[in-house]
Amino acid sequence: MSKILRINTREKTHRYEEVRAELAPLGGRALTSRLVLNEVPPSCHALSKDNKLIVAPGLLSGTAAANSGRISVGAKSPLTGGIKESNAGGLLCQKLAKLGIKAVVLEDKPEGSGFSVVVIRKDGVEIAPADEYVGLGNNETMKKLWGKYGKRVGVMSIGPAGEQRLSAACINFADTNGRPGRAAGRGGLGAVMGSKRIKAIVVDDSGADRVPVANPEAFKAANKRWVEILKGHPVTGQGLPAYGTAILINIINEAGALPTKNFRFGRFEHAQDISGERMAELIEARGGKTKEGCHPGCVIQCSNVYHDKDGKYLTSGFEYETIWALGANTTIKELDDIARLDALCDDIGIDTIETGVTLGVAMEAGLIPWGDGKAAIELIKKVATGEPMGKIIGNGSSFTGQALGVDRIPVVKRQALPAYDPRSVKGVGVTYCTSAMGADHTAGYAVAPNILKVGGNVDPLKKEGNVQTSKNLQIATAAVDSTGLCLFVAFAVLDTQDGVQTIVNLLNAQYGLNLTPDDVIKLGISILKDENTFNVRAGFTTAHDRLPDFFKEPLPPHNTTWDFTDEELQQAKTFQ
Amino acid sequence: MSKILRINTREKTHRYEEVRAELAPLGGRALTSRLVLNEVPPSCHALSKDNKLIVAPGLLSGTAAANSGRISVGAKSPLTGGIKESNAGGLLCQKLAKLGIKAVVLEDKPEGSGFSVVVIRKDGVEIAPADEYVGLGNNETMKKLWGKYGKRVGVMSIGPAGEQRLSAACINFADTNGRPGRAAGRGGLGAVMGSKRIKAIVVDDSGADRVPVANPEAFKAANKRWVEILKGHPVTGQGLPAYGTAILINIINEAGALPTKNFRFGRFEHAQDISGERMAELIEARGGKTKEGCHPGCVIQCSNVYHDKDGKYLTSGFEYETIWALGANTTIKELDDIARLDALCDDIGIDTIETGVTLGVAMEAGLIPWGDGKAAIELIKKVATGEPMGKIIGNGSSFTGQALGVDRIPVVKRQALPAYDPRSVKGVGVTYCTSAMGADHTAGYAVAPNILKVGGNVDPLKKEGNVQTSKNLQIATAAVDSTGLCLFVAFAVLDTQDGVQTIVNLLNAQYGLNLTPDDVIKLGISILKDENTFNVRAGFTTAHDRLPDFFKEPLPPHNTTWDFTDEELQQAKTFQ
Repeated sequence: MSKILRINTREKTHRYEEVRAELAPLGGRALTSRLVLNEVPPSCHALSKDNKLIVAPGLLSGTAAANSGRISVGAKSPLTGGIKESNAGGLLCQKLAKLGIKAVVLEDKPEGSGFSVVVIRKDGVEIAPADEYVGLGNNETMKKLWGKYGKRVGVMSIGPAGEQRLSAACINFADTNGRPGRAAGRGGLGAVMGSKRIKAIVVDDSGADRVPVANPEAFKAANKRWVEILKGHPVTGQGLPAYGTAILINIINEAGALPTKNFRFGRFEHAQDISGERMAELIEARGGKTKEGCHPGCVIQCSNVYHDKDGKYLTSGFEYETIWALGANTTIKELDDIARLDALCDDIGIDTIETGVTLGVAMEAGLIPWGDGKAAIELIKKVATGEPMGKIIGNGSSFTGQALGVDRIPVVKRQALPAYDPRSVKGVGVTYCTSAMGADHTAGYAVAPNILKVGGNVDPLKKEGNVQTSKNLQIATAAVDSTGLCLFVAFAVLDTQDGVQTIVNLLNAQYGLNLTPDDVIKLGISILKDENTFNVRAGFTTAHDRLPDFFKEPLPPHNTTWDFTDEELQQAKTFQ
Repeated sequence: MSKILRINTREKTHRYEEVRAELAPLGGRALTSRLVLNEVPPSCHALSKDNKLIVAPGLLSGTAAANSGRISVGAKSPLTGGIKESNAGGLLCQKLAKLGIKAVVLEDKPEGSGFSVVVIRKDGVEIAPADEYVGLGNNETMKKLWGKYGKRVGVMSIGPAGEQRLSAACINFADTNGRPGRAAGRGGLGAVMGSKRIKAIVVDDSGADRVPVANPEAFKAANKRWVEILKGHPVTGQGLPAYGTAILINIINEAGALPTKNFRFGRFEHAQDISGERMAELIEARGGKTKEGCHPGCVIQCSNVYHDKDGKYLTSGFEYETIWALGANTTIKELDDIARLDALCDDIGIDTIETGVTLGVAMEAGLIPWGDGKAAIELIKKVATGEPMGKIIGNGSSFTGQALGVDRIPVVKRQALPAYDPRSVKGVGVTYCTSAMGADHTAGYAVAPNILKVGGNVDPLKKEGNVQTSKNLQIATAAVDSTGLCLFVAFAVLDTQDGVQTIVNLLNAQYGLNLTPDDVIKLGISILKDENTFNVRAGFTTAHDRLPDFFKEPLPPHNTTWDFTDEELQQAKTFQ
């Protein structure tokens, strides 16, 4: 990969840029975060012409390396006001990599309100009017684009939420069935794409050469071992393929850390009804699919296709975080209602975590009753139509709390907390507080050593060891997010002696390098430093690295409280 | 004044507290800011039980000192997230002072949704259900309260906006006619009062003793000179009484600094139609009142009563900032429409500056047409009904910008800019950026030396001298805001050799002290330090002391740009 494709959305022009030496070793999140740091003024309005939307495949993307098809999207976030990287599966990543494109950078913004579609091919870039897609949901948009450009193309698009530039808007990526179940969900990146008036980017890699690999034999050997490692671990080889990520519902509920009723309780009495086991049972009975990769080349296959009671397609990519946010957090216990909400979120293009927490806040305000799935569905539909209540909900939890005068809003840096109560999974709580991304479990998934006992064993209910655990995981994750590898590979890597070395072997074989695992750590640290530097310039301080005050209340059943001091937390982001 | 009255809004109890020595020399803003600093956790949610609403008369309030009846209200602001002091006229201030109450502190918050009215009398405090007032506008609320408690009582109340805890909600104070034309407008303090479920505070000073004065003869002499100074200055003695504050429309327009069409231009082609001169003409013709004090004891009389074309009461306290915000900024040129909007804001209880700028943002988004007064009136009415679009508008400019996906939002610290374009009145621009309050002209009114050539002569179009000018004015203003004196006294004080000394003489005579003008400066600095300390703890940095990027665009007619560096601006808040 050797080119950066810059698209001026105002002039509707593009140019290819050679990659400067400084950027050559970077991919995925390392590249998006560096470009945001270098090119986006930290004080700019996130929806202004000065922000940039950057789409970058990982360092291993486009190759045969297993699970290497995650694409990073970066910008200044309209939700948090800080830097953002959000990554997703889908088809687009590997196609972009195969075209030799290291990053697509959307710049400037048009004066008018018309939208465009960007089509990237081997022999050219087209920026065409998107009139026929405007106002459509992601499902119809992707269907039409596949109809027009063929079923081989990768697509990223925004739904009505992104068009309206709402802060919970995500960017959806067509999966292998051309459906929008995969999303760069967090931080409102869909609003940035909407502000640039780009409805979709289509990537057609027809005629592309293979991604060059410096040492094919070594690469093949490393990848063989890599697949062995992934298939050999109980989580990536058995648990995730069998039940999907929703296997965690029962596990986290049992651990007393499943946030219930807007983070009031750690257990949900109806957890069984929305569990991965129950979901798998329904999928089997109704003819969906329990095993599916979120991108080609995935050997874990933790995704799924979920049908309704009549056996008709309802949703796909029906994940733990989604089921928790729209379920336990709102006390909605009907899995079909939750699936319908997930399908709506994918179609409208809003983050399911942010939206579920927003529903909890709306229920807190009495806007709709607790646990009322039908009312939640009607409320979410309003986001698509652009009516005022939809604009409130579509701007996320913090915004909805302000609109409705609620003070119990579970956010850090205005981003909604994910599916682990930080009082009873303290390691991930440290991540929520100290990640530059705002509350984000993927930034340092301490649930692994805290609860799953993968990659260590650190008591989730006590402070001891959790700051260092989160810190180490944040470093490792930043590096993994630069490779294009799916984060779930970490389960296997952390438990396997030669796990990290095998990733290093893949990188060395592809690029003809002599990296060591130490270099990977250095890369991870440099990414975190870039991100923290941007945020400091944007005005973030230790005061923003805190949970809301109500987390000082004890959480049943363990009655644990959030008890870290600022000084303790800051250790997680202090690097030599 | 020797007692602090603390009201627990959850328990519905009260207690009087003796004033600790540390707090004894403080009044008004000095006291509210010190109590917020000492007692409110900077990271708390502004609508949570941990915030406090503090109401404090000034050091001279309750005495015969001219223009000493301004009341300070302080809290953590739901709008800015920082500390807030907002002051207002009306009857309540001097009555509270006469009862010997140095501050009322509303603490905690109720679990349920019922509202209360607090009635403060010489011989007791009553916390009664407010059911009969809930949902009413400020006009009807005040009318009913006067009906129940007599026409001598002071009233502060919130309208439907405060009840809904919207961030643009103000607290209105009954004027001498029992109307809500006076407001502690800025920073959403009405939402804090609403979160405590207090609909109104009634103060009945029947039977109260006179405020003790240590040296009555000296006080009388000082006040005589004080009245002479105020009546002798052309601004406070002639300009303001003749045309009210709206005299500034033509002056600021002529100076090319009247923000027009959401801060696009410095001149409004229809300025004449909304000018103070035009307003005075209409008032004369229709039988309103051009001279009126915002509180008893005022010798400036810059307020007014404005009638509609049928000679019926329409609004009062119809001020420059209001007319600009709802007029030039939105390009609405019909003064009667602007007056109707002002009346609606007072009744619903929303800040007119924040609301006018919000209308500009809504017009920017195309929600209603530019200059359409009738559409603006219908839009503002929605704030009263609680419908979703009303909740958006009622949360102010920054919020509305986010809801509607607009990136041209003139705010600092999320608070709307007032009526002077900072590019062409650079001194007040420095105040907007560096005041702990967010964009606030009253915090350091450099318009005086910049445009009016009062208290100095500093070029408004150049940087030179403006940082120091703003800094000096911010110090002096903080001190004035502690005395209960109206800020407009500054016009006369700045131009009169013995101006400051006369205020010091009043304080010395009342309290038996030996203060010097230097002590007043020290008091001002200590207040600013308190406020800045709170904000730093709440997470504010130099990145928050900036104007939005679009102020780098040149402003016609002078084509000046905003060109201060962070380092230059920080000088305005650097104290030894």
